Amino acid sequence: MIIVMETKATRDQVNGIVARVKALGLGAHLSEGEERTIIGVVGSPLPPSLEDELEIHSGVERVVRITKKYKLTGWDFHPQKSTIAVRDVVIGGDALTIIAGPCSVESEEQTVSTARAVKDAGASILRGGAYKPRTSPYEFRGMGRRGLEILATAREETGMPIITEVMTPSDIDVVGEFTDIFQIGARNSQNYLLLEEVGKAGKPVMLKRGLSMLMEEWLLAAEYVMAQGNPDVILCERGIRTFESSTRNTLDVSSVPVIQGMSHLPVFVDPSHAAGKRALVPALALAGIAAGADGLMIEVHPNPDHALSDGAQSLTFAQFEALTPRLAAVAEAVGRRLPVGADVAPVPA
Amino acid sequence: MIIVMETKATRDQVNGIVARVKALGLGAHLSEGEERTIIGVVGSPLPPSLEDELEIHSGVERVVRITKKYKLTGWDFHPQKSTIAVRDVVIGGDALTIIAGPCSVESEEQTVSTARAVKDAGASILRGGAYKPRTSPYEFRGMGRRGLEILATAREETGMPIITEVMTPSDIDVVGEFTDIFQIGARNSQNYLLLEEVGKAGKPVMLKRGLSMLMEEWLLAAEYVMAQGNPDVILCERGIRTFESSTRNTLDVSSVPVIQGMSHLPVFVDPSHAAGKRALVPALALAGIAAGADGLMIEVHPNPDHALSDGAQSLTFAQFEALTPRLAAVAEAVGRRLPVGADVAPVPA
Amino acid sequence: MIIVMETKATRDQVNGIVARVKALGLGAHLSEGEERTIIGVVGSPLPPSLEDELEIHSGVERVVRITKKYKLTGWDFHPQKSTIAVRDVVIGGDALTIIAGPCSVESEEQTVSTARAVKDAGASILRGGAYKPRTSPYEFRGMGRRGLEILATAREETGMPIITEVMTPSDIDVVGEFTDIFQIGARNSQNYLLLEEVGKAGKPVMLKRGLSMLMEEWLLAAEYVMAQGNPDVILCERGIRTFESSTRNTLDVSSVPVIQGMSHLPVFVDPSHAAGKRALVPALALAGIAAGADGLMIEVHPNPDHALSDGAQSLTFAQFEALTPRLAAVAEAVGRRLPVGADVAPVPA
Amino acid sequence: MIIVMETKATRDQVNGIVARVKALGLGAHLSEGEERTIIGVVGSPLPPSLEDELEIHSGVERVVRITKKYKLTGWDFHPQKSTIAVRDVVIGGDALTIIAGPCSVESEEQTVSTARAVKDAGASILRGGAYKPRTSPYEFRGMGRRGLEILATAREETGMPIITEVMTPSDIDVVGEFTDIFQIGARNSQNYLLLEEVGKAGKPVMLKRGLSMLMEEWLLAAEYVMAQGNPDVILCERGIRTFESSTRNTLDVSSVPVIQGMSHLPVFVDPSHAAGKRALVPALALAGIAAGADGLMIEVHPNPDHALSDGAQSLTFAQFEALTPRLAAVAEAVGRRLPVGADVAPVPA
Repeated sequence: MIIVMETKATRDQVNGIVARVKALGLGAHLSEGEERTIIGVVGSPLPPSLEDELEIHSGVERVVRITKKYKLTGWDFHPQKSTIAVRDVVIGGDALTIIAGPCSVESEEQTVSTARAVKDAGASILRGGAYKPRTSPYEFRGMGRRGLEILATAREETGMPIITEVMTPSDIDVVGEFTDIFQIGARNSQNYLLLEEVGKAGKPVMLKRGLSMLMEEWLLAAEYVMAQGNPDVILCERGIRTFESSTRNTLDVSSVPVIQGMSHLPVFVDPSHAAGKRALVPALALAGIAAGADGLMIEVHPNPDHALSDGAQSLTFAQFEALTPRLAAVAEAVGRRLPVGADVAPVPA
Repeated sequence: MIIVMETKATRDQVNGIVARVKALGLGAHLSEGEERTIIGVVGSPLPPSLEDELEIHSGVERVVRITKKYKLTGWDFHPQKSTIAVRDVVIGGDALTIIAGPCSVESEEQTVSTARAVKDAGASILRGGAYKPRTSPYEFRGMGRRGLEILATAREETGMPIITEVMTPSDIDVVGEFTDIFQIGARNSQNYLLLEEVGKAGKPVMLKRGLSMLMEEWLLAAEYVMAQGNPDVILCERGIRTFESSTRNTLDVSSVPVIQGMSHLPVFVDPSHAAGKRALVPALALAGIAAGADGLMIEVHPNPDHALSDGAQSLTFAQFEALTPRLAAVAEAVGRRLPVGADVAPVPA
Repeated sequence: MIIVMETKATRDQVNGIVARVKALGLGAHLSEGEERTIIGVVGSPLPPSLEDELEIHSGVERVVRITKKYKLTGWDFHPQKSTIAVRDVVIGGDALTIIAGPCSVESEEQTVSTARAVKDAGASILRGGAYKPRTSPYEFRGMGRRGLEILATAREETGMPIITEVMTPSDIDVVGEFTDIFQIGARNSQNYLLLEEVGKAGKPVMLKRGLSMLMEEWLLAAEYVMAQGNPDVILCERGIRTFESSTRNTLDVSSVPVIQGMSHLPVFVDPSHAAGKRALVPALALAGIAAGADGLMIEVHPNPDHALSDGAQSLTFAQFEALTPRLAAVAEAVGRRLPVGADVAPVPA
Repeated sequence: MIIVMETKATRDQVNGIVARVKALGLGAHLSEGEERTIIGVVGSPLPPSLEDELEIHSGVERVVRITKKYKLTGWDFHPQKSTIAVRDVVIGGDALTIIAGPCSVESEEQTVSTARAVKDAGASILRGGAYKPRTSPYEFRGMGRRGLEILATAREETGMPIITEVMTPSDIDVVGEFTDIFQIGARNSQNYLLLEEVGKAGKPVMLKRGLSMLMEEWLLAAEYVMAQGNPDVILCERGIRTFESSTRNTLDVSSVPVIQGMSHLPVFVDPSHAAGKRALVPALALAGIAAGADGLMIEVHPNPDHALSDGAQSLTFAQFEALTPRLAAVAEAVGRRLPVGADVAPVPA
């Protein structure tokens, strides 16, 4: 951390800062220039909001943090890109991972048929919501435990691992009994106690980006999970909230290369929630792969017009089948591939 | 709800929509104009995301919801402005309510001295964090139960009701044992299970606006609390996230009159979190009162430069004392007042 | 336009609205339901801000415009996708158009060498700024007319058409003397008089999206150009301003399919200004093509670290050469192609 | 400027930076710590985008600019708050300035009657648009020169100075023939050539904040005017574009104290354009004054429901008359006042 003093800062002001830094058990290294004094702070750990505190001291012009606040998610502590194994699927390697399925689990028939369809078309993991966060308390909020059982049935039928959302610490046990990956939704992305508890549950966690989350905040949220000893975190960009209203959210496709520059964790893109409209999903899915995402999460429904949630953004089976070969082609164009042949076990008859 | 069909919509498309509406137990009323057909949907309840579903049907140009999604928070169901009694303090009446205190409870000495100082200066309710949500897992996260005990001591010493944050359902019992008002922070503003559980706890709830929350979403979050039978919800604007970076958040002062047009609930302004910088707090506090807020929530600390959290935005005792007479003057200018004399019991010697 | 009256609207209020509508020379068609009256407005043209005016009349619940404000840019008036011929280059067809070159023209050597390099690597059109809009009045603002002459020299040397920015109506003549395409920058995207004047100048116009421009506003800005009889407008997404600060702007890649749903005009992506950082440009360029853009505009500089403007976001020749084959591969994956062979005349020796 | 090198930066990388800095005629001062080297850049002027350039050099961790980019607008160059005299009105002093009038000049009757009404109620300056920027080319765009003549008549009738918008350099002469203050609208706030030309015209300039303009960008735009020798610039906050859609724009009331900390220029608030809805204007006007604004700009119309532009946000005469005493009361509460008695010459009979 570097503290730049004002040109008119007094000796007393400089000494006051130095004393404050030393009181925190840190060292202070003065560089007295012609125009101004600069104080280098050495030692660790730096209190995370130290710059805010120091910046308002009189005589201080600017405080610049040089060390990063995040650790476990950064390249410094883990110079290889992370790969995460979920049953037979490896996330973060050369082969991209397509997660697909209905927004909400509505019935066994709906879920199993979707699982079969998306697996046939190239998806590796099945998604489906059993506990649904809804803006309004008067909306359908998921089937709960019965939904989890249906997902497990679909896994048995197809061999696909499953991912489903957990919304509150007290549901971690029941969700963990069934799921292969815990999903933390955008609205819970800074629900820190949930992040810690899910970090203790011993299974991979997909952390969606919050609607107004900065890159560093996203990594720090992942840090809550990893600090519990769980290295298996997947990040998922799903659109941010901006002034633009023609899409439900604004897909920040740049977050893919930006995060990849900061962190070794795999990054996915969810084009369905970003777009909010079915017709836009293919373009955003293709863009996500082209930008370097490690995978996609796409909503697919046998009859989207009658879905109990988010039908407007769900693809039909036919639309998803038409999309995956295009995803494969773009993946190849950027040096990746969709899992095929040996990668994907066939759906049991 | 009104469904505007495209000019080129076919009879079959119109019939399809009508059938879908009827399948939901609703009525459909056709108005066939020269250019296009308009379908009015009558009956209730309308599924909350029905417009999303219908909008993507072929032949549909636009769907317009006319009824509001929120109920209990709206004027239709409660035509008088809500007032909320918290011990001797009445929130939402003519007298404004100033909530003040430290960001975090750090010690009995710090908390009690702050409570005395802010009460003397005109505050009615004491704030203080015992469980703190922090962006990073490596920051100070509050004193927990010991912090609650200190707040209770400060209440005993001064007679002021207290408000403190609760972050997760499993803490509701312990926090409820001590607090007079539950505070739900911005990051938990869409933590729906927390909202429901706190709604059952039988005490007033202050719901901060999320960083990217729309007005309707804010009311729907309040609706989660109220749907549990708890009418005592206070809304608190604390700044939204925008492109502007000279303040920590952008205080959306317009939200005060906008919400007052939509809802009977009291609305507060938190200038401290909005500004992020002490020097800006007075201007934003005064603006909040001028815009019609029912109260303020302000951070005050005996020695802000050494606060364990958010020191940069905390006022000193002297700054808070200098501010309250100005708040009183602006309050009077807009037809409100700060509680004085009979309104405020003196601090016991 | 549909005017939804409040349930409690009086007969007088309905009559007042009808009278107002008729005073504008429009027709009013009443549909009186059990709950409320709905007034359909027929006839044209509708004053563009009529809904704002009517919405605040007492008794009015909601006003819904059904017809679009934009005309010439929309599919209704031009059901074929537009293609724009610029010398030998056709924009908007199957072949994508890569525009590349330095941010600013700095010298003949710099510009011609860049032109040769980008043409060899697959670019079809040369960009270069002679008149530069700069946030600060103390920055380099371009070479002016001399810069235009250099661009013309580069065109002669390579056969590539050129595009350059015009900032004010009085420069249109001199810029038009040289350029093949006028570029209107993001900051001038709502400089309506400039748009009209450039619309009269008889050459294609590329209109960059403003930093906080909605889709409809963007099309209406294009409408200013087209209303002067100039059909040759190219739209270019270059990032919007959001809370996210890890990139200079946030590339709104969704704007590509959204605009393509609304308008027949070609849409480009400028990954350089969106990213603001060289390392991110390839990922965003690839994402733009994958999302369906008709072309890209990329900054390339022989020695970016010494560029007089925007060096940080400019690719080196080697980086651009490494990128174009990847662009070609993604283009092919989404059913497009980069111009090759017969499409591109070789650079004269 | 301070350049923080990476911990692993090589001697060659450090030397490269030093060489680059010296090539710009600046000095480099090395501070070699245990962990990393820090390079202080001394001398001036610093190229305005030098940090962008240096930040991407290999071996560089971070570049921090310490000196401000703006000069003439800052306190360093002008330690007294600016006051601006416009005929008998002094802007920026203790007395606040209320500018009021119709959005557009529509007729002599409309303008003169509005001028009389707003003067009687306490306004000091008359606003009115003769040249109107409109999002759509198909909207009413003002009366042009005839509108200016009407404003001049209203000035004669009431003695009030006038302010009106100029949209393009070629209109400066005609507008300058009539107006007392040039208004630059939000959409032209980065139309740099217009700013320079209006800076030469020898009359005060009000510069509205652009919809997505940062504080520094706003001051740099003002710098364009001032660099032409014109010190009389007034800034006007009129709302920024955010995700929030319940108001037309989001009034960033914090910009008032923030700008006042950075600059000596007077700052106004325009509640009408920020709100977009009449009912919200009073609350925002009061908030602006409470936050410390030097004045307000408010739209008033004799018959807002029939205004040719922005009627929805215009106050009626009665609403404006009801508002000004409340503005006066809040002004007094924050140590300012509305001009009365000797300050305001009576309207000639």
